[in-house]
Amino acid sequence: MDWFTENQTDNLRLSVSVKQTLLDTRSEFQHVSVVETEQYGTLLALDGFIQTNDVDEFVYHEMIAHVPLITHSNPRRVLVIGGGDGGAVRECVKHASVERVDLVEIDGRVIDACRRFFPNIACELDNPRVRVHVADGIRFIQEVTDPYDVVIIDSSEPVGPGEGLFTPEFYGNVARALAPEGLMVAQTESPWINGHVVQRAYRGIRSAFPLTALYLANVPTYPTGMWSFTMGSKVHNPRRPVGLDRAAALQTRYYTPEVHQAAFALPPFVAALWREVEAK
Amino acid sequence: MDWFTENQTDNLRLSVSVKQTLLDTRSEFQHVSVVETEQYGTLLALDGFIQTNDVDEFVYHEMIAHVPLITHSNPRRVLVIGGGDGGAVRECVKHASVERVDLVEIDGRVIDACRRFFPNIACELDNPRVRVHVADGIRFIQEVTDPYDVVIIDSSEPVGPGEGLFTPEFYGNVARALAPEGLMVAQTESPWINGHVVQRAYRGIRSAFPLTALYLANVPTYPTGMWSFTMGSKVHNPRRPVGLDRAAALQTRYYTPEVHQAAFALPPFVAALWREVEAK
Repeated sequence: MDWFTENQTDNLRLSVSVKQTLLDTRSEFQHVSVVETEQYGTLLALDGFIQTNDVDEFVYHEMIAHVPLITHSNPRRVLVIGGGDGGAVRECVKHASVERVDLVEIDGRVIDACRRFFPNIACELDNPRVRVHVADGIRFIQEVTDPYDVVIIDSSEPVGPGEGLFTPEFYGNVARALAPEGLMVAQTESPWINGHVVQRAYRGIRSAFPLTALYLANVPTYPTGMWSFTMGSKVHNPRRPVGLDRAAALQTRYYTPEVHQAAFALPPFVAALWREVEAK
Repeated sequence: MDWFTENQTDNLRLSVSVKQTLLDTRSEFQHVSVVETEQYGTLLALDGFIQTNDVDEFVYHEMIAHVPLITHSNPRRVLVIGGGDGGAVRECVKHASVERVDLVEIDGRVIDACRRFFPNIACELDNPRVRVHVADGIRFIQEVTDPYDVVIIDSSEPVGPGEGLFTPEFYGNVARALAPEGLMVAQTESPWINGHVVQRAYRGIRSAFPLTALYLANVPTYPTGMWSFTMGSKVHNPRRPVGLDRAAALQTRYYTPEVHQAAFALPPFVAALWREVEAK
């Protein structure tokens, strides 16, 4: 039996048995591989790190999209940076208020691979409300003229192409690209083993937004199974979401209004990461 | 570099690098191994399945103990079945109301190994309020004459020595061993890959208790990182815990009153496991 193994850290590995390799190529930016697994169905890895798969993808995509969109009173224009698999886009267009989603993915090969091998994730990329831009999100955000209500930063790790998406300059540009009631969310890795990423994102986002908040979800194929998301918001408080009446219309398998609230209940060892930053 | 690998399923493996093997033996009941790892410190495995480790043990032990104890109005007598590492016991004696904790572990070798290699977990086994019984929990529960306020079933998987701890007969005996306001909790595996265990425990526990509830916690070294606990209760509702005023006195790294409430917010794909049982 063949196995796909991710080196989650130097001392921690997750392995899944592989039925067949569907794609194994190098793009301009990274190594792109797609494998068919027994445990998690079809699975996408970039530079050896699992990005998404058929079985647990709904958790990450629902939680990165619905938490910010339900926090906002009337999200109409959404920008997704990264997220070339289309999963976040698919969740955004479930909201009737959303008129336009711009997806900005730097690596066209990722979009192509997902259209081909993940039809259930990439299924809304051709929705008439969606525009796909193969472009650098760092440059794209600097040139925004028509502001967004919500910006979703669905990036890979802060190494390689994802690096520049974790800087204070970038978060400042996101704030400028947002309408007066706008808000953003970024995936910020595992509090257990990437506490420095949580802290780095917090330092940057709190320098650009008056309201910040951290929330959690369980993603089995990400290291430790505990994943964090950091929000920056101009006026709306994600712990008192004003759009809960719209949540009932969403077809979901992880997100509910109760899960939304629960995701902000941080264990003390997680809350300590932010307190460390504040103490400096 | 040596690696300890757990076959979480036939198609899923977690591996941690090993600095040294501290114990590798076969008891009357199971294979007992203790390894020193880089990622998770000292780690205990029974029959190849990770049971506990220095780094993330606080999550499981706090959540299996404080959720039932804070749900109860005045827990004085507690029974822990399994849990030979002493972690659940350590959390129970943090409660000033608790006068007596009986620990019933079938495998004395597990207790010995934990006293020796996990001093921070087994540290309360010699507390004067604690009695350690090397005995079969299934038989012990049948012979209880002085009822308990809380029973904690801190078992291994429902194969091998843990098997008989998941039957309706056993849960019925637990109910009989509990005082009129008593309640129980059992660890019930991962909803992602052991949904049948969640369902089996639910069927058995609801046949013995008027109130049942399922809650979740993130344990990185358990398969999928999402772990479930099932409660059975005679009168106290764990979603409206009456002991929250006592929670402030607990020194914890995962449990808080807010985390207690949040743990019962089930994603729809988890709640569906119980609905399937009810539909039958």
